[in-house]
Amino acid sequence: MNLEQVLEKAVIFPRVGTEAIDLPESFGRILALDIIADIDLPGFARSTMDGYGVRASSTFGASEANPAYLSVKGAVAMGKKPAFSIGPGEAAGISTGGMLPDGADGVVMVEHVEMIDGLTLEVYKSVAPGQHVVARGEDIRKDSVMISKGVAVRSQEAGLLAAFGISRVPVYKQPVIGILSTGDEIVPIHETPGLGRIRDINTYTLSGLIRECGAVPLPFGIVGDDYDSLYATCSSALQQTDMLLISGGSSVGVRDFTIEVLSALKQSEILVHGISISPGKPTILATSQNKAVWGLPGHVVSAMVVFHAVVKPFVEKISGLSQNDRQNPPVPAFLSRNLSSAQGRTDYVRVKLIKRKDGLWAEPILGKSGLIHTMVKADGLISVGLNTEGLDKDSLVEVMLL
Amino acid sequence: MNLEQVLEKAVIFPRVGTEAIDLPESFGRILALDIIADIDLPGFARSTMDGYGVRASSTFGASEANPAYLSVKGAVAMGKKPAFSIGPGEAAGISTGGMLPDGADGVVMVEHVEMIDGLTLEVYKSVAPGQHVVARGEDIRKDSVMISKGVAVRSQEAGLLAAFGISRVPVYKQPVIGILSTGDEIVPIHETPGLGRIRDINTYTLSGLIRECGAVPLPFGIVGDDYDSLYATCSSALQQTDMLLISGGSSVGVRDFTIEVLSALKQSEILVHGISISPGKPTILATSQNKAVWGLPGHVVSAMVVFHAVVKPFVEKISGLSQNDRQNPPVPAFLSRNLSSAQGRTDYVRVKLIKRKDGLWAEPILGKSGLIHTMVKADGLISVGLNTEGLDKDSLVEVMLL
Repeated sequence: MNLEQVLEKAVIFPRVGTEAIDLPESFGRILALDIIADIDLPGFARSTMDGYGVRASSTFGASEANPAYLSVKGAVAMGKKPAFSIGPGEAAGISTGGMLPDGADGVVMVEHVEMIDGLTLEVYKSVAPGQHVVARGEDIRKDSVMISKGVAVRSQEAGLLAAFGISRVPVYKQPVIGILSTGDEIVPIHETPGLGRIRDINTYTLSGLIRECGAVPLPFGIVGDDYDSLYATCSSALQQTDMLLISGGSSVGVRDFTIEVLSALKQSEILVHGISISPGKPTILATSQNKAVWGLPGHVVSAMVVFHAVVKPFVEKISGLSQNDRQNPPVPAFLSRNLSSAQGRTDYVRVKLIKRKDGLWAEPILGKSGLIHTMVKADGLISVGLNTEGLDKDSLVEVMLL
Repeated sequence: MNLEQVLEKAVIFPRVGTEAIDLPESFGRILALDIIADIDLPGFARSTMDGYGVRASSTFGASEANPAYLSVKGAVAMGKKPAFSIGPGEAAGISTGGMLPDGADGVVMVEHVEMIDGLTLEVYKSVAPGQHVVARGEDIRKDSVMISKGVAVRSQEAGLLAAFGISRVPVYKQPVIGILSTGDEIVPIHETPGLGRIRDINTYTLSGLIRECGAVPLPFGIVGDDYDSLYATCSSALQQTDMLLISGGSSVGVRDFTIEVLSALKQSEILVHGISISPGKPTILATSQNKAVWGLPGHVVSAMVVFHAVVKPFVEKISGLSQNDRQNPPVPAFLSRNLSSAQGRTDYVRVKLIKRKDGLWAEPILGKSGLIHTMVKADGLISVGLNTEGLDKDSLVEVMLL
């Protein structure tokens, strides 16, 4: 099955539930409701400069040669509604952020005036109505949708929620994603592996990738090459998670068990058995009780590539995210060398980003897909499409950051 | 002072201390030591394919027309050292990830062989020495520096640490950064602001930005336009933090207080008073007891821009980060319209990223720097340099993601 066909399956998996959380905890979380403004922001006309609030028409024609003379009625105290109003020929001292008195519709900057006695202001420059003023509702108008459902909360969205006093935020829950490593050759990281064995790397790489998606990793340890253990652990893991990733095992035996176990799980169906991508071809996707269960390759690089290219869009779907390229858009760069690729599959190539005077360059890092150091050296991945035989040096590519 | 001169001041602030934390907590944290490999990875030659381990020379010249015949000595069990060795004319079944028996130096893929009886293998393709094998130490060699000090831990670095059984990771502490909002017009977000007042937005936007840097925000609430309160709160905040951000107040009074208070703090010096950037010109940087204390503009957009352009490199410096553009490199895009700019200052312009067939475009979002909705619409910032009068439509710009 090709990548596009696999990604279409994401629609069948339901979004996680919603909850309300405290505003300071909401960074990176995904809004579960449209947020509607219940007031105008700001709620009053504010000065954007230090100066004098005036009726703009009183300054028309004013210049260095021909100043306007205004009578100062007082000064606006910060955080208070002025007790006076401004008429023609009048002015009131105001600081940045101060509330314009009734009758004033512009602010003349402090640089363009001089007090000639305690009461009279000489104005050297005219202001237009609305100048140096933020009008009531100019930032956000009451009853408008200020942030849409499905948006991830960044600093500015949090600030906007704060401006409206929204201290509890309606968000989607963070999906809980189970991780299970399989294979008789895998040992927990606190053990010293004997000859023929290696430590469990995938639990940690996949945990990191899951966290980067804003989801919560829940590791279920290592299961050996044994049908019954794999079935029991998968069944139990599915009770506690919204999605399950089974990585490895590398051995033929475990691969056979995995497909058998996935077929035997409650309300299960194998949706995908093999994807025309490289690395990552032997990937399996099943559904059980409306949850996605993945059989990922055991090689660490392959498992990471499949996560980025295939699993991540499914995590985003169930997370409720709707603008999924906003925070981490692919970065355009020039390819530093020719890359060949087999037709009929999508190849993923690790690259290092190199900044040169003539732009940003993507330099392929070649190496076997079992070697994690190639991922440590890499800044991103590029894909070489299904229907191309390769990419030429100097062509523009999109780098998915790692 | 121009931006470059301000950024040079970062060197005077010391890095935070170090600590050891559990591996699963290390994502995003910054390594405080070079990590040296204490073993070869892998610790033994592994097969990268399912097939048969052989002495490569036994297959030389083998083809469909002229197969080689090998005698099968057994199968390698996953996770175990094979009890037998392989000589000329011999083979052993092996799965992906299995340990090569002594004497074998290549793997012939299962697709290129056939068992003709229980003991004899027909091989249709020759393999080269080392083919389909990861050699001992090929991923990481013992005693090499596998990850350098100052690198932020991504999924792959965590995986590499796991491979070496490093379950406690030496990292820099997360800097604790105090936030203080000032101004008589600012009210806490749970209050309904009266006319002339607005809720405290900056505490929340700055908290988010601090978290994005991997640091810990510590809010100290709101201080009114009062010298004594500001002095007392700053002094106390500096005891509990590694850096302090004071935002606002917008009013002349608070601006005057702020500079006085910063000058009066213990072991303090004003390093910067005004930066030739827009927005953000009135920014102040002081040092007190070797900690950076910032006076940021009160306008929400200005404070965010100054954080991105100026404060963030200081946070990264004290965090111990050394590869600071790896995770969030600027994204190249084409400018959708002409932008004018004053010479002698660096202008920051909010942009929306738009993907078109002919590439990625940055569309300027214009609007007053007090309007937070402009930041909510924006995907990034571009800068228009100190010595240019503007940028032409279609020119290539670098977008700093927001």
